[in-house]
Amino acid sequence: MKGKLYLIPTTLGDTSINQVIPQDIQELIPTIKHFIVENIRTARRYLKKVNSAIDIDELRFYELNKHSSPNEISGYLNAIKDFDIGIISEAGCPGVADPGADVVKLAHEKNIQVVPLVGPSSILMSLMASGFNGQNFAFNGYLPIKSNERAKKIKQLDSRSLSENQTQIFIEAPYRNNKLVEDLIANCSGGTKLCIAVDITMESEFIKTLPVKAWKGMDIDLHKKPAIFLMHREK
Amino acid sequence: MKGKLYLIPTTLGDTSINQVIPQDIQELIPTIKHFIVENIRTARRYLKKVNSAIDIDELRFYELNKHSSPNEISGYLNAIKDFDIGIISEAGCPGVADPGADVVKLAHEKNIQVVPLVGPSSILMSLMASGFNGQNFAFNGYLPIKSNERAKKIKQLDSRSLSENQTQIFIEAPYRNNKLVEDLIANCSGGTKLCIAVDITMESEFIKTLPVKAWKGMDIDLHKKPAIFLMHREK
Repeated sequence: MKGKLYLIPTTLGDTSINQVIPQDIQELIPTIKHFIVENIRTARRYLKKVNSAIDIDELRFYELNKHSSPNEISGYLNAIKDFDIGIISEAGCPGVADPGADVVKLAHEKNIQVVPLVGPSSILMSLMASGFNGQNFAFNGYLPIKSNERAKKIKQLDSRSLSENQTQIFIEAPYRNNKLVEDLIANCSGGTKLCIAVDITMESEFIKTLPVKAWKGMDIDLHKKPAIFLMHREK
Repeated sequence: MKGKLYLIPTTLGDTSINQVIPQDIQELIPTIKHFIVENIRTARRYLKKVNSAIDIDELRFYELNKHSSPNEISGYLNAIKDFDIGIISEAGCPGVADPGADVVKLAHEKNIQVVPLVGPSSILMSLMASGFNGQNFAFNGYLPIKSNERAKKIKQLDSRSLSENQTQIFIEAPYRNNKLVEDLIANCSGGTKLCIAVDITMESEFIKTLPVKAWKGMDIDLHKKPAIFLMHREK
């Protein structure tokens, strides 16, 4: 086995590469010619942004999305016999909340070396900036959409946060952010603290922790903005 | 309020700064003169490594550890009226599994802007490289030390991993790593997968996912090495 599987982070939105990707990784990327990517067009654009001297035409891209079968993914990894392969996801760190994890899983089964690289993660950065418990936290992905199921889930996370002293982190489709804030205000205990982190690493970055009841009167519009939500209920 | 509170990541062990800290952050650090740190000596050494031109003698350090009272911490933040303040922890990202979170919590109460910066996190990097579910995961910190409590906790995390499809992440004091692996093998279901990630970002980096039963015969020595453990039990 000659190659390694590199997990290559990307920017979160329109920021400069130097702000979020270390120099050594910027120098490693142009040495890789095979990429497994969520979207070929955005991956190409990202690679040109990392280093405009990269000759995109000599690269090989393998598309990975929820329709990719295990057989296809296994085929993608064949190139590793001779070459390094990079995984690039749509935003942030591959393997966390994206299809990259399926490739990594197969790589371990095939005894391929997996190398994670440093870059921005909205989950980790929002946790750092929340002031909540970082010794014990859970990322829950998306909450249910149906109103009654969602209310139940919020209440469940609220009480688990208290009983286990565990920070609860979750995300929402950006066009439903404002509705989620409403639902959180309606279903959390008033004393539970809510951190809302929007546009992380961007000029417009906004990260704020307040008790749920204090968010109630706030005039904030999160519509279609990349946001992440954290809550913690203290004893 | 003139200043911001920057959360400044450090290297995980003896790696080059360019491998894990983006250029813009390396340029931001020398502009900050006030630092809240876990250990003044290692913070000084880190700052010199980031930029040897930094004049350490003109910097102001405030020590933060488990003995720091909320009153002291609140005092540390007074400088923010006039200056930016940086938080530096012993390894990795401040606010996650270290005392930095207490400072951030107070900062939000005082309406101070908190800015998380990109750097290496063993929790996030091991999750990326594990191949486990990154849509739903929990970091549990340290497991109990007492044998019966620890066995109970491992079994509880193993079954929660299955019932909630949630990746379970935890750490151990490095001199007890080998004992933890024994305890995991003894208490997990044979089909549960265990990822062991050691020396992340270092030359000697080792990250491997195998079923618990396959780890049993492996000859690995994790004694006193920085390691992180992840498990996932699939349906």
